[in-house]
Amino acid sequence: MPSSSEFDRLVVVLVSPRNPLNVGAAARAMSNFGFSRLRVVNAYEVAFREARSAVGASSVLRQAEEYASLAEAVADCTLVVGTTAARKRELQHPLRPLPEGARLIRARLRSSRVALLFGSEKRGLSNEDFSHCHWLIRIPTREEHPSMNLGQAVAICLYEIAQAAPAKQTEKLRPATAGEVEAITQRLLEALTLSGYVKPRAASSTEEKIRRMVSRLAIPASDAGVWMGILRQILWKLKLSS
Amino acid sequence: MPSSSEFDRLVVVLVSPRNPLNVGAAARAMSNFGFSRLRVVNAYEVAFREARSAVGASSVLRQAEEYASLAEAVADCTLVVGTTAARKRELQHPLRPLPEGARLIRARLRSSRVALLFGSEKRGLSNEDFSHCHWLIRIPTREEHPSMNLGQAVAICLYEIAQAAPAKQTEKLRPATAGEVEAITQRLLEALTLSGYVKPRAASSTEEKIRRMVSRLAIPASDAGVWMGILRQILWKLKLSS
Repeated sequence: MPSSSEFDRLVVVLVSPRNPLNVGAAARAMSNFGFSRLRVVNAYEVAFREARSAVGASSVLRQAEEYASLAEAVADCTLVVGTTAARKRELQHPLRPLPEGARLIRARLRSSRVALLFGSEKRGLSNEDFSHCHWLIRIPTREEHPSMNLGQAVAICLYEIAQAAPAKQTEKLRPATAGEVEAITQRLLEALTLSGYVKPRAASSTEEKIRRMVSRLAIPASDAGVWMGILRQILWKLKLSS
Repeated sequence: MPSSSEFDRLVVVLVSPRNPLNVGAAARAMSNFGFSRLRVVNAYEVAFREARSAVGASSVLRQAEEYASLAEAVADCTLVVGTTAARKRELQHPLRPLPEGARLIRARLRSSRVALLFGSEKRGLSNEDFSHCHWLIRIPTREEHPSMNLGQAVAICLYEIAQAAPAKQTEKLRPATAGEVEAITQRLLEALTLSGYVKPRAASSTEEKIRRMVSRLAIPASDAGVWMGILRQILWKLKLSS
């Protein structure tokens, strides 16, 4: 068995869950497989608070944290993985089968936090949500009926991650956290606006495209501060001349 | 992907389920992973019928079959596999980790029907239920919180079975069905009673012990009729002399 601190580094993020029973089921599966860190973004508030304060709520559920945005919920993670039932939708991200994805997640958990994202019951994750992800996992369901119950999808992913042997990692540099990368993305967007590369109120699709491009850079943690300094300097100059 | 007829040979049996939501969740996971044959034993009737006739019930749920006893529900299967969260309980059956069990199930599905049993939400499968099983599967949950939600347990098992590469089989003889083996067990019990080996109203634990012993014999289908004939002859003689 892996050390419990390794499992504590996995952050399960439910984005816009609607049914408190599913939040409870996700928390139960986490407890079954030894994971403890549950975060909920934009939950249907009343239902979520009821579920969390219910008699008999598990410690996972009681300690669940609420976030207003996905960016904040994943800010301390170095790897952000989305889940999807899609097979052919034009995804702009690498799509990995669950067993392979689970091994990569286990490898990263040895050294830093990983966020695993699940979308709402009806719609799954949005393109905006996907733009925060490094890659996606697909649970291999039947093409005619791909959409899984949220609690069951969480249970299957956690079962596979708990079972998986970590993939061998070749990377030597500790990657920047999602929060650091997002800060760089926001500065870059500002610079692109000021420089006229994008229009002042750019379409959200532009922002998503830039976010994906920056996340593909795989910025090492040790370089994040330097990049922020470079962008700050450019912004200062751009503002002077505008 | 395996042929659909192979997956159609898997029979998912829910024993004494109490919550119709769980029956629905089990049916949904079956549909996600391409399985269709759901049987329910001793369900809480009103709730089950409601779930089955609900608008939007899946075809798996609508076609689910009800049985009064487990013996009848598994009679046409040549392999009966139970599920348990138990780790140390004195189980009288081989306990296999899910991945290994899934490969063995896939191998058997190539030629004949396999029953996969799930117990009720509160108590799981009883010892009497176990006595109908050839072996058991354990989902590797955490020792401090082993008990899974029924719908999630079904989903994880079916995910693993759908994924698994069939184990290589060495057996050459097609095994007898659970119904044939149960008929032999009942004749043997009758003979043991008439001969005075067991008391007329034997404890249910005796019956379970005999059932396990007979199932361990792995009677080939081609021999089942001969064994029935032998037992019938012995019973005829025993009745004459009593």
